[in-house]
Amino acid sequence: MESFFKVKKSEEVLKILEQFGPSGEEQITLEQGLGRVLAHDLVAPENLPGFFRSTMDGYAVKAKGTFGASESVPALFDISGEVLMGQVPKMLVGEGQAVKISTGGMLPEGADGVVMIEYCHLLDEKTLEISRAISPLENVIQPADDFEQGAVVFEKGRLLRMQDLGLMAGFGQSDITVYKKPVVAIVSTGDEIVPIDEKPSPGRVRDINRYTLSAFCRRLGAKPLYVGLCPDNFDPLKATVENALAEADTVWISGGSSVGTRDLTLKVFKTLPDFELLVHGISISPGKPTIIAKSGSKPIIGLPGHVASALVVAEVFLTRLVSGLSGRVVSRLGSQTLIEAELSRNIESASGRDEYVRVKLNEKGDTLIAEPIFGKSGLLSTLVEADGLIRVDMNTEGLYQGQKIKVLLFDTANGGIE
Amino acid sequence: MESFFKVKKSEEVLKILEQFGPSGEEQITLEQGLGRVLAHDLVAPENLPGFFRSTMDGYAVKAKGTFGASESVPALFDISGEVLMGQVPKMLVGEGQAVKISTGGMLPEGADGVVMIEYCHLLDEKTLEISRAISPLENVIQPADDFEQGAVVFEKGRLLRMQDLGLMAGFGQSDITVYKKPVVAIVSTGDEIVPIDEKPSPGRVRDINRYTLSAFCRRLGAKPLYVGLCPDNFDPLKATVENALAEADTVWISGGSSVGTRDLTLKVFKTLPDFELLVHGISISPGKPTIIAKSGSKPIIGLPGHVASALVVAEVFLTRLVSGLSGRVVSRLGSQTLIEAELSRNIESASGRDEYVRVKLNEKGDTLIAEPIFGKSGLLSTLVEADGLIRVDMNTEGLYQGQKIKVLLFDTANGGIE
Repeated sequence: MESFFKVKKSEEVLKILEQFGPSGEEQITLEQGLGRVLAHDLVAPENLPGFFRSTMDGYAVKAKGTFGASESVPALFDISGEVLMGQVPKMLVGEGQAVKISTGGMLPEGADGVVMIEYCHLLDEKTLEISRAISPLENVIQPADDFEQGAVVFEKGRLLRMQDLGLMAGFGQSDITVYKKPVVAIVSTGDEIVPIDEKPSPGRVRDINRYTLSAFCRRLGAKPLYVGLCPDNFDPLKATVENALAEADTVWISGGSSVGTRDLTLKVFKTLPDFELLVHGISISPGKPTIIAKSGSKPIIGLPGHVASALVVAEVFLTRLVSGLSGRVVSRLGSQTLIEAELSRNIESASGRDEYVRVKLNEKGDTLIAEPIFGKSGLLSTLVEADGLIRVDMNTEGLYQGQKIKVLLFDTANGGIE
Repeated sequence: MESFFKVKKSEEVLKILEQFGPSGEEQITLEQGLGRVLAHDLVAPENLPGFFRSTMDGYAVKAKGTFGASESVPALFDISGEVLMGQVPKMLVGEGQAVKISTGGMLPEGADGVVMIEYCHLLDEKTLEISRAISPLENVIQPADDFEQGAVVFEKGRLLRMQDLGLMAGFGQSDITVYKKPVVAIVSTGDEIVPIDEKPSPGRVRDINRYTLSAFCRRLGAKPLYVGLCPDNFDPLKATVENALAEADTVWISGGSSVGTRDLTLKVFKTLPDFELLVHGISISPGKPTIIAKSGSKPIIGLPGHVASALVVAEVFLTRLVSGLSGRVVSRLGSQTLIEAELSRNIESASGRDEYVRVKLNEKGDTLIAEPIFGKSGLLSTLVEADGLIRVDMNTEGLYQGQKIKVLLFDTANGGIE
């Protein structure tokens, strides 16, 4: 009766999945860094910026000389030169002197501020009228204003975004060390499943989960490895899973929507070295007949065969698994995109299970309205019509019309790019 | 004074950018389809499903025979066989007969419903007690329940998500025709910019925009093509832009944070064939000195040199451009992830310009709190600290503490995967 005790609640399952970590590191170019996960802390190798820079087009001066200046009582300055971009200015700015400077230019010695061009008026080629006072360091970035040498800029486990790559470029990190992308072996089982380029005879259907689950992995920055379509027989399934386990960081079997094939998946899993059953059934709908186990340190997953059920389980639970295998530190915002919407009608709670309901989102003025899509769980049309999922917690009586709810979006990409 | 009249408001700029469309089509495998955009309507080539399928494990019967059945008055049936997965059942189900069937199995002739296994009790090998009535077609999917042959399943311009690929797999579409990914040529200019593998001498900085803008493109499913780092001189910049234009669908120059280089960019653009200036300056902050023009049908963009300004302009405007070049139909939800948060403090409106303020998001119970990040616009640290942007509309007095606002997320990927 081992399996009886392994039916878990959602929170328990998410907790169990936290034990899995990344399988290794690799070096890539910065160009390839988007959506990858840093494997080491980044310590600032130098000050950024490295010198006093102007943040405006204007004139570099000693700020003191502008004190009291206004439109009615402008201050007069002698123009003593121009800072050329990318060059170290050779002049020294004395009292009453102004040097032309562009945004990003290096502040010349002696100057401690920049007056914006808007407040400067040329009286002649050599004489400048300034109609506004600046304070010292106004319109100037100081060395280390951004980051000081030795400071921890990013902690390992950070998912790299556009601007993070920009900062690493600023520090000259042309090669970076990231965690390897987890390789997810995907196995489809079922005597009724045929490859998609075959015309299924009556009673058979094409292999859909291969494509949805591969896309799911890709979307999260994992590498799907399709290892084959397997009939519901012990020996071929065992051989396929063993091969998959040797090549991948985790193995996901989809199929087994019937009791018989579910039992077969577990029977095969049990033959694997260092097998441990972690979850046998989750108290959610759809998706209850899910198996989570491990062989050594590698997670092995048995997913329901229904496309919708498999996708819900993937969205709700395997996102966490892939995140862990990728080495990501779960951010404050989590790894998934949740947006708020207003429910269009009441939904009763399914007794004893967290229910995930597909919703379509519509805009009504400034508000998003989430409209539940009901229909037979085996239908694909309900999935392609849906923009996301909402959760009806088993400990509530349900959700009410007009209630604010969080929608887990089916977007094309949450956390990664291949 | 041409340029004076070309300073545009945000909405005008977005409208102007709508004129650009995809450059062509290509055929890819279904496996590569995530985040790609369909170039033709998909018409259902066959009924889906193609036969009556059971959605449950149980027994196929004539529903009529169960009418009135209950736990206290069960109905009795003779078990007359079992449906094997993937096979056409050969038996005919008569009155009082039940045939074992698994989820996904083909309904045998004569049966019109499936009783879930939970309500079936074996009295002996041949005799079944059913404790619940079903209605005709209960637990059964009919042919074409999902899609009828000839129906338009997806319209062209659809961005393909996981489940969309699943459906196409169900229809046997192993090759699909999508719009080509737009190729975006990226040029960095500035005498002060050095490649990132060089140690900048005082007064110089590394080329950051190349990396942030490339990542921005990748994130949206476009192909960045880095064409080089150019000094602020007419001839080399003209040659670089001409080469870029020949190879790419659009050219983006970043640099020109100073008046001089901005003028240079425009001067070079003006020499291009069929040049038309569309926007010279946008009334936003940061990002005002942005140029949008076209040479023939190809958009050419001059972005500010400041990393933050360039990224804000990209996020707010070029997302729309890339979306158009990709052939995407802007969905009900738009192409960007907006999430709702509560503002942590008042923000005054910048007079006469829409202001985009970087914010950090924090969870407070169930509410997201958006905390504005202020700081010198040239600092990278404010960008890497930020989770997204909020807009302070120029037609308002500002935003108030506690107000609900929409945050445009800096996630790693919105709309595409390479």
